[in-house]
Amino acid sequence: MEKELIFGHQNPDTDAIGTAIAYSYLQNKLGYNTEPVALGEANDETAFALKKFGFEAPRVIKTAANEVDKVMLVDHNEPQQSVSDIDKVTVTHVVDHHRIMNFNTTSPLFYLDEPVGCTSTIMYDLYRYNDVEIPKNIAGIMLSAIISDTLLLKSPTTTDKDKKAVEALAEIAGVDYQSYGLEELKAGTNIADKSEEELIDLDAKSFEFNGQTARVAQINVVDLPEAMERKDSFLKAMDDVSEAENYDLFMLLITNVLDSDSKALVVGNDNAKAAFEKAFGKVVDSEIDLPGVVSRKKQVVPQLTEAFE
Amino acid sequence: MEKELIFGHQNPDTDAIGTAIAYSYLQNKLGYNTEPVALGEANDETAFALKKFGFEAPRVIKTAANEVDKVMLVDHNEPQQSVSDIDKVTVTHVVDHHRIMNFNTTSPLFYLDEPVGCTSTIMYDLYRYNDVEIPKNIAGIMLSAIISDTLLLKSPTTTDKDKKAVEALAEIAGVDYQSYGLEELKAGTNIADKSEEELIDLDAKSFEFNGQTARVAQINVVDLPEAMERKDSFLKAMDDVSEAENYDLFMLLITNVLDSDSKALVVGNDNAKAAFEKAFGKVVDSEIDLPGVVSRKKQVVPQLTEAFE
Repeated sequence: MEKELIFGHQNPDTDAIGTAIAYSYLQNKLGYNTEPVALGEANDETAFALKKFGFEAPRVIKTAANEVDKVMLVDHNEPQQSVSDIDKVTVTHVVDHHRIMNFNTTSPLFYLDEPVGCTSTIMYDLYRYNDVEIPKNIAGIMLSAIISDTLLLKSPTTTDKDKKAVEALAEIAGVDYQSYGLEELKAGTNIADKSEEELIDLDAKSFEFNGQTARVAQINVVDLPEAMERKDSFLKAMDDVSEAENYDLFMLLITNVLDSDSKALVVGNDNAKAAFEKAFGKVVDSEIDLPGVVSRKKQVVPQLTEAFE
Repeated sequence: MEKELIFGHQNPDTDAIGTAIAYSYLQNKLGYNTEPVALGEANDETAFALKKFGFEAPRVIKTAANEVDKVMLVDHNEPQQSVSDIDKVTVTHVVDHHRIMNFNTTSPLFYLDEPVGCTSTIMYDLYRYNDVEIPKNIAGIMLSAIISDTLLLKSPTTTDKDKKAVEALAEIAGVDYQSYGLEELKAGTNIADKSEEELIDLDAKSFEFNGQTARVAQINVVDLPEAMERKDSFLKAMDDVSEAENYDLFMLLITNVLDSDSKALVVGNDNAKAAFEKAFGKVVDSEIDLPGVVSRKKQVVPQLTEAFE
């Protein structure tokens, strides 16, 4: 069987990497020949989860067509979040939990999107549906992905299916998901030893809103005031990247994972900032409080999409 | 629960109508409030299948936003094949077996696409997956859809999953699928009492190929020479529609459902015809033999997509 690569989005998080590993195991059991890879290094939280369940970080690739003709995507579908040469390979499978945007194919494919908190929740169903037993370590990395994406089941993206998957996977993995989950999330909040440039690129995604390009980055912390002490340096880094990459808008969502509140820093051109304010209210000194906002997908992207229309 | 409409593509075939009926029954069992509707009158073959299994033809709609805010799509995703106001409603579910093209959403949704012969094959899995028993008449209309789309399992789009679904559904429906299938297909081949204008619109889909618009229509017959006696009238009808609707290319695939061979009639501008010939070879007097070609999806659309690149 011809080899295929499986990967999540750029600036990978625990879902992008963990679900690629889980999908590759499942597909290989079903007769495919796949390798899970990543479009960037594992972040601190993901590295913690990989180590906990005995995985090496997947190999990092930037392009795919130099290795394979066919790929499978998890946790994303928008071309600008994928390998740079995604138009040169055939996508045969997608498992995702995001909006569908600018994803076009020549032929039918396997595509499963569900409005749940994490791609690993869908993956849990795919294992059950195909009658494939989930190994202990695979259950652990899938559990870690769901904890990460749902902020330990507290994000508004969380569904009953996510809760059920977390309970089932925690049992298979043999961990208490509450205590493990807190450990895992905290592992991703150490911002002290990273530069602002690194932090705004750690979990950042690009979007196109009605012809305008936007970058929406998110960092998790346990101490918002401590993060805000670095505000001026964050803004400078955001301005620099916006200029270099021609972003019309750059938003950095700084989320306290313990109490599920956020502040956002915002830079951009007047038109884009006006759209942002239409969605979220007045930005003062490039800063805005967003109480209760923790989900880029559910509480940021749809609102910006509408505001830019 | 807020009501949602479920429908297949314009110029509906047995899959578009039958799978809408089957999906509505399933979703209502799962707690949704849905109604299956159609974007056009049932064709002869579909009317035969509906009558056989005791269904009324679904209500015909042209727009959805005047009735509901949310819809579910089966057997299509491309906006130009859907209700004219598809951009004014939210698509919450899609079950399909075609390429994905120009389908964009603001939020995540349930989307299941599989490269199988018929949407009802996927629907069969969804019933099993959700542990919902398939009633006898629903099994019958799903069976009819698969027979229609796969030309009684002879189209190259046919997969093992389609075969298994046909066997299982025939058993539930209590019919011999070989003899019923032949009856059903023949019911759709009576072209004598229809005008050329009607025939080229019966099972026709619009596509965009690299900025050019194309109409690809298909009719099923049991006697190709008899159909070709009307060639000049077909060509005139195709020219008239192309002019009225600004199609760059109009292709009519005339398929003998008994021996799985086709002839095509082709009109269009020079550029589009050149692309067509790149894909299929020389067109002589607006006519070309396409032996073995029976599937628009697998044997026409990908080839044209590539030729127009």
